[in-house]
Amino acid sequence: MAIRFGLLGAGRIGKVHAKAVTGDAQAKLVAVADAMPAAAQAIADQYGCEVRTIEAIEAAGDIDAVVICTPTDTHADLIERFVKAGKAVFCEKPIDLSLARVKACLEVVRAHKGTLMVGFNRRFDPHFRAVRAEIDKGTVGEVEMVVITSRDPGAPPVDYIKRSGGIFRDMTIHDFDMARFLLGEEISEVVATAAVLVDPAIGVAGDFDSVQVLLKTASGKQAMISNSRRATYGYDQRIEVHGSKGAVSAENQRPVSIEVATGAGYTRPPLHDFFMTRYTEAYAAEIATFIAAMAGTGKAEPTGEDGLVALALADAAVKSVAEGRVVKLSEVM
Amino acid sequence: MAIRFGLLGAGRIGKVHAKAVTGDAQAKLVAVADAMPAAAQAIADQYGCEVRTIEAIEAAGDIDAVVICTPTDTHADLIERFVKAGKAVFCEKPIDLSLARVKACLEVVRAHKGTLMVGFNRRFDPHFRAVRAEIDKGTVGEVEMVVITSRDPGAPPVDYIKRSGGIFRDMTIHDFDMARFLLGEEISEVVATAAVLVDPAIGVAGDFDSVQVLLKTASGKQAMISNSRRATYGYDQRIEVHGSKGAVSAENQRPVSIEVATGAGYTRPPLHDFFMTRYTEAYAAEIATFIAAMAGTGKAEPTGEDGLVALALADAAVKSVAEGRVVKLSEVM
Amino acid sequence: MAIRFGLLGAGRIGKVHAKAVTGDAQAKLVAVADAMPAAAQAIADQYGCEVRTIEAIEAAGDIDAVVICTPTDTHADLIERFVKAGKAVFCEKPIDLSLARVKACLEVVRAHKGTLMVGFNRRFDPHFRAVRAEIDKGTVGEVEMVVITSRDPGAPPVDYIKRSGGIFRDMTIHDFDMARFLLGEEISEVVATAAVLVDPAIGVAGDFDSVQVLLKTASGKQAMISNSRRATYGYDQRIEVHGSKGAVSAENQRPVSIEVATGAGYTRPPLHDFFMTRYTEAYAAEIATFIAAMAGTGKAEPTGEDGLVALALADAAVKSVAEGRVVKLSEVM
Amino acid sequence: MAIRFGLLGAGRIGKVHAKAVTGDAQAKLVAVADAMPAAAQAIADQYGCEVRTIEAIEAAGDIDAVVICTPTDTHADLIERFVKAGKAVFCEKPIDLSLARVKACLEVVRAHKGTLMVGFNRRFDPHFRAVRAEIDKGTVGEVEMVVITSRDPGAPPVDYIKRSGGIFRDMTIHDFDMARFLLGEEISEVVATAAVLVDPAIGVAGDFDSVQVLLKTASGKQAMISNSRRATYGYDQRIEVHGSKGAVSAENQRPVSIEVATGAGYTRPPLHDFFMTRYTEAYAAEIATFIAAMAGTGKAEPTGEDGLVALALADAAVKSVAEGRVVKLSEVM
Repeated sequence: MAIRFGLLGAGRIGKVHAKAVTGDAQAKLVAVADAMPAAAQAIADQYGCEVRTIEAIEAAGDIDAVVICTPTDTHADLIERFVKAGKAVFCEKPIDLSLARVKACLEVVRAHKGTLMVGFNRRFDPHFRAVRAEIDKGTVGEVEMVVITSRDPGAPPVDYIKRSGGIFRDMTIHDFDMARFLLGEEISEVVATAAVLVDPAIGVAGDFDSVQVLLKTASGKQAMISNSRRATYGYDQRIEVHGSKGAVSAENQRPVSIEVATGAGYTRPPLHDFFMTRYTEAYAAEIATFIAAMAGTGKAEPTGEDGLVALALADAAVKSVAEGRVVKLSEVM
Repeated sequence: MAIRFGLLGAGRIGKVHAKAVTGDAQAKLVAVADAMPAAAQAIADQYGCEVRTIEAIEAAGDIDAVVICTPTDTHADLIERFVKAGKAVFCEKPIDLSLARVKACLEVVRAHKGTLMVGFNRRFDPHFRAVRAEIDKGTVGEVEMVVITSRDPGAPPVDYIKRSGGIFRDMTIHDFDMARFLLGEEISEVVATAAVLVDPAIGVAGDFDSVQVLLKTASGKQAMISNSRRATYGYDQRIEVHGSKGAVSAENQRPVSIEVATGAGYTRPPLHDFFMTRYTEAYAAEIATFIAAMAGTGKAEPTGEDGLVALALADAAVKSVAEGRVVKLSEVM
Repeated sequence: MAIRFGLLGAGRIGKVHAKAVTGDAQAKLVAVADAMPAAAQAIADQYGCEVRTIEAIEAAGDIDAVVICTPTDTHADLIERFVKAGKAVFCEKPIDLSLARVKACLEVVRAHKGTLMVGFNRRFDPHFRAVRAEIDKGTVGEVEMVVITSRDPGAPPVDYIKRSGGIFRDMTIHDFDMARFLLGEEISEVVATAAVLVDPAIGVAGDFDSVQVLLKTASGKQAMISNSRRATYGYDQRIEVHGSKGAVSAENQRPVSIEVATGAGYTRPPLHDFFMTRYTEAYAAEIATFIAAMAGTGKAEPTGEDGLVALALADAAVKSVAEGRVVKLSEVM
Repeated sequence: MAIRFGLLGAGRIGKVHAKAVTGDAQAKLVAVADAMPAAAQAIADQYGCEVRTIEAIEAAGDIDAVVICTPTDTHADLIERFVKAGKAVFCEKPIDLSLARVKACLEVVRAHKGTLMVGFNRRFDPHFRAVRAEIDKGTVGEVEMVVITSRDPGAPPVDYIKRSGGIFRDMTIHDFDMARFLLGEEISEVVATAAVLVDPAIGVAGDFDSVQVLLKTASGKQAMISNSRRATYGYDQRIEVHGSKGAVSAENQRPVSIEVATGAGYTRPPLHDFFMTRYTEAYAAEIATFIAAMAGTGKAEPTGEDGLVALALADAAVKSVAEGRVVKLSEVM
């Protein structure tokens, strides 16, 4: 029997998940809730589901699982409410911007033996997944060094940055999770450098727009991350893993892969414009994994614990920049 | 209001089109017909449409258009019946293996001012389409020479080849259409060489499995095609256009684009395994174009005439191999 | 002891060979001859050898081998003279533009048991050589289809074309040799199409500037060649071999291999500007092979016979275009 | 008139420079010195120069410049002696492993108004040079972030590491210089992480074999470096520059650039095996630059000062690893 879903939040990412749920033969979208009735109605119209309140979904007997796509500051509360209501929960990252709040929330999940999966979509990108599969197969031997490049086409509004927790907690957090996914061993040390080069207003808001991070595990595996809030050539998303027997990498993706040759040289088109087009397949695979987990044929990973550690790494990076030193993860956890 | 569809044929390609029609907000799949009731029922179940007979669809007042995915030898008859019934028709290629039959069919379409679009899916591949867009923009200047490589991962059963009209009419026909799409001028001359290298049984059946074709237009534009029924590395589909100001090409596509580096070198995975995965986007865009044409916002192209000319080029290639000479298209049309 | 060389012809390609001979520890450049004394003197000054007449080199006791880089219409006579004088001969292609004259010349070489190597430089390109090595290793299985793309950055002066024997004998001849090098079996059939698209004056001179050729061996191996006298993006030189177990290709080379990414896309610089820079390594390896052959550690290949067959293929292509049909090599040999 | 050279040191790198000097029309190799007479004699035989003692070269009236390729611990002394003797000096990096000794040496050079160029060969690689040229042209706008990957095919003997000053001073030093070359602004801060993953004996010797470095300038430009003493796929040498208007990168180079396609995927050969083959063109261009500088048509750069700063960055990295913190360059200079 199909898993019955409620969707909380009908914004941009909510629409992505609505499409993924309705496109999966093992799932059925039963209801959608949003503070903006028109947004919820649009999804209801397109996919033939009901508009309900969050409370109604919480109390519903015909809903097995929810996908939380509401604003960040509601995530932890909603996770707790729906876990208590006995629903499986898929929540967009982050769980919360406060490590203490995340820990408390995960305590509630554990206490209720709830299912919580956190939306680190990049783990489900087929190319990144294939990189991980090569590691698992032993192709590159022992993982030694990881290089992650992640650059956004443009900076978000300063208002967003103020709410987002800053570049390390909102953007680099994906790379922290990816580093963990690839290193296969917990990170113990973090050091970062940071600058404001793209938009001075970001600096005024107390944040950075161009950052570099080094990570290290207890056994000496290392990773480095390069982030910028600017990339004129599209959404730059690359990973590279170097190991004792070889290396494996995933290059950038572009929507159209032609090449034009003229006297000016050989030109390929720019990359995808941002995550909605770049990670289309990843979003679908992510929800499929959650559904499979509920159907008993997979694991609901990344977990709440993965969300917690990624946030802690972000906190450590913030501290490292402030104090000009290597910060141990144990200092912030 | 949505365009209402009937689907004739519920096999592999019928399923592809059923998904495309139901995924398009401007269209609605009303009914499906197939000689195998179970096949039709499976589609009806998945997409919530009715199972009907072909006759019922022909007579239906609630159907505006049909998609013909039945066996080749039924295409021309069905096109005529549904055009006479006032339905717009999308038909998988080819219209028929006999040039005379195709001409008679197109006469009926014209007489009834019918709408007929033929399924040369490759024109809708986003990469090939982008190649054509560069030509239209003038990036490469006047088109001078086209190179098309098309190799199947493996040979079809000899039974299929006997029914298919042979390699030129079943496989190269796509490349003939692509050459016309890219040259932008009618082809006037054809010459080909052919051999049996993959499967001797194909030779026994009177066909070839490895062929090369040269094409030329009246003004001297030229194209060349390399076809093989074998490619160990996947479905090899490349086009390249050389013009007075530059060149543009579309490289092969692979489902996963990672690269592994070891002492043995740098390795990327094989290509897509065949057309169903390689041309997923093309199939969707093809039906979207047909729907748009009916909605008045596009053209139902490639037309029946395009289907006719591609078949005539195949006939000319067969004749060229038999007679060891350049054959003018006017000799066979 | 070093092989002692005389150089006949001190033009552009003569300089290339002078550098190759003097850079080889097993060889010594003793003398140079040229109708233009200044040209000969320049080489003599740079490499510390003597200027002599052709007659003096012919009679010299201190010269073991000659490199012939004089105008084409002197090649056959000089080959005969120097073979008779007991010198090993390396001659730039072609031996002559007349098949009858080439045959007569090779007869003289055979009669005197002379050593004659012909300058098809591309066989010595490290990348093309590596392609051939993969074939020899069996990586691609039985060779089935070869695709050769060869485009010059610009058309030569019409005066040159009049003397050169036309595009098939002066430009495609390299591709005919390359096809033989890769197919590993003699070509039995040739068919070509041709047009004038680049420079009408070339058409007035009775030649073509854009040609396509199909080749076939007795067992059904096939090759196709695309040639143009124009390529805005540099010297386009690619080969591709498709076999029963796989394929192998050599891509274009560029002097600088960076990539610039901007909003306009990802751009790599144009290719090499022409053969002098593209085939630098090939020219050096070619002369090293000739020297090695004389030192008894290699073969003086390609031979005069290779030069003969390549010219015959060109003659067959000319005939094919004139008569609009497949021409057997046996018709022209 | 040609610049007359003395070569000090006839080992591996001495031979490279001997070839470069003798191949340059503006230079003449007059004499070579080496503690091993046979090594000096071999170069003298091949290039027709004399074997002399260092003292004789120092006193010679027929020598304008020297190339120092002797062991590292003799560099500073030889620079001082030859600058005092009025010769222009090209010295292999590093000048010395002690910052104080380097400073003293540069003081002597300045006092005698000597010419000193230091051998950071990578600045002369045509691809890296082209990257810098794009920066200079403004293609990428303001440089913001640099990523340098540098991995050796294998670890050197532990004996070498003991003498070399360790990975930061012997290997990363090239990347420090490259970062300065590309950033176009002095680096003010350094932080590094380091591990022993390749060879435990390296750890026993007090060094690391896998390191990561972050660099930052006063204005916030940043760079990151990934180094390993191991790379199974060849000599991994890449740079990438990200700026306000775009990015530019130089990919790895391989001696043979073919691609083999089979059921196992698409494979290109490994990279160059090490610096001698990878940087052939760079070594020649480096000496040509030194010669041009003496001929008054160029600059003798990188200078002794460049050598000093690169060493200071290495010292800062060592200190950063030891103290787990960001180190300012001013702390070590």
